[in-house]
Amino acid sequence: MEKEVISRFVQFADTLAEEARRVLERVTDGGFEVAEKSDASVVTDADLEIEKALRARIAEAFPEHGVLGEELPTLNPDAEYQWILDPIDGTEEFCVGVPTFGSIISLWYRGTPIVGVIDHPALNVRVVGGRGVGVSVNGVPFQRETGESRSRLTISKPVNFQRVGDESLLFTKIIERFPNIRIFDSCYATTCALLGGAGAMFDCNVKIWDIGASKVLVEELGGVYRELRCTHDGRYTVAFGRESMVQELEELFNRYKCQ
Amino acid sequence: MEKEVISRFVQFADTLAEEARRVLERVTDGGFEVAEKSDASVVTDADLEIEKALRARIAEAFPEHGVLGEELPTLNPDAEYQWILDPIDGTEEFCVGVPTFGSIISLWYRGTPIVGVIDHPALNVRVVGGRGVGVSVNGVPFQRETGESRSRLTISKPVNFQRVGDESLLFTKIIERFPNIRIFDSCYATTCALLGGAGAMFDCNVKIWDIGASKVLVEELGGVYRELRCTHDGRYTVAFGRESMVQELEELFNRYKCQ
Repeated sequence: MEKEVISRFVQFADTLAEEARRVLERVTDGGFEVAEKSDASVVTDADLEIEKALRARIAEAFPEHGVLGEELPTLNPDAEYQWILDPIDGTEEFCVGVPTFGSIISLWYRGTPIVGVIDHPALNVRVVGGRGVGVSVNGVPFQRETGESRSRLTISKPVNFQRVGDESLLFTKIIERFPNIRIFDSCYATTCALLGGAGAMFDCNVKIWDIGASKVLVEELGGVYRELRCTHDGRYTVAFGRESMVQELEELFNRYKCQ
Repeated sequence: MEKEVISRFVQFADTLAEEARRVLERVTDGGFEVAEKSDASVVTDADLEIEKALRARIAEAFPEHGVLGEELPTLNPDAEYQWILDPIDGTEEFCVGVPTFGSIISLWYRGTPIVGVIDHPALNVRVVGGRGVGVSVNGVPFQRETGESRSRLTISKPVNFQRVGDESLLFTKIIERFPNIRIFDSCYATTCALLGGAGAMFDCNVKIWDIGASKVLVEELGGVYRELRCTHDGRYTVAFGRESMVQELEELFNRYKCQ
């Protein structure tokens, strides 16, 4: 696919993230005060309102494209282009006033992600990228520093290691090897592994909209992405970031996974 | 101690946090861009420069007070009033562009904390409180919501559970009981447990400046604080937040601690 085409989609995805922020601000009556809590119903509303707004924009610009979102039914499932939407990842964070939540938006073409956006409104950090056209953070081209020797790992919370079977031993073995872990919601943990806040991420038993943007972004930044498992009910386990860490994570996964 | 006296100290501690932000901004040439990385030497400089600046202010206002800080030698160790300073907690976060780092400032009187401040410059969140005078967030009086049923726990990273002996079993048992954990640096993990981002925190084998502000702030917000252990070399293990969670954490600690 030509770079100009990708760049056009990247720009469009960026406007979707902007729209998601606007809707969130409207639904929550403006502002994202960290210490200001909202109740769960507000958040559910926000999730749904954002997804509706993004779908409306996509339908207007690309009526033939498919949409797969967390909150609403799948649209045009056989289309070559598929938008994958997580209007608010880290809903729990949002509810309790932790500012790491965000929107994850990606565009896939014939099963391959070509555009990825992760947007953190309360942190004012937006990561946007496309296959072959690089990654920018808040509009500024971003390059990962080379020669990082850090072994900081972001990893899914322990509850995720119970979703396909009891994989608590896998969690234990991973943190034995990488004891300097951090645990955030999925989208900020991903952002860390992308921008250098962690060397890699181990994202365990999550849905497609949690990882929709990860592969294209990490590969554009020179990192590696490994899909380790996709269960029949659509639970993905992936590792991505620095190659040496991903390699070790893959070995640990293969040894200690439950199936 | 009279409330007016405490309030005066609270106000002064607030100006110290403001000063810490100014110095940090100066040392890092302004701004706290999340995606902008600084090298470790800059951070060490910032740590030291902030502590120097705070000590200068304290010496000017209260020359008879003691100061215990992470970076510089102890001052007036026998004084009744002791300022305990962690100029930048979460130095690693600061280095890699994760915005949860912060300054921890507290004032202790005859061994009891009476004033506590946790300030997160990059998140623009400052928690300030004093014994009997309540807690404010960014200058606005803050009250913890009652009736929270959440069991989110913030906990020290696994490396901390190796500092007094191998206590990885303790970590494992805690996350078995509270699988919905988050792991941040110590100061933001504390802020979460204070403001409702988590129900409680388990802070393992940390130094006095990491926990200097925790007790007074959590108790002023109606939570409980339990010092579970202080080793001969000054490693504290504490649990604080919602009473029921703290109670369970204490039981787990007593059962699975290594000494």
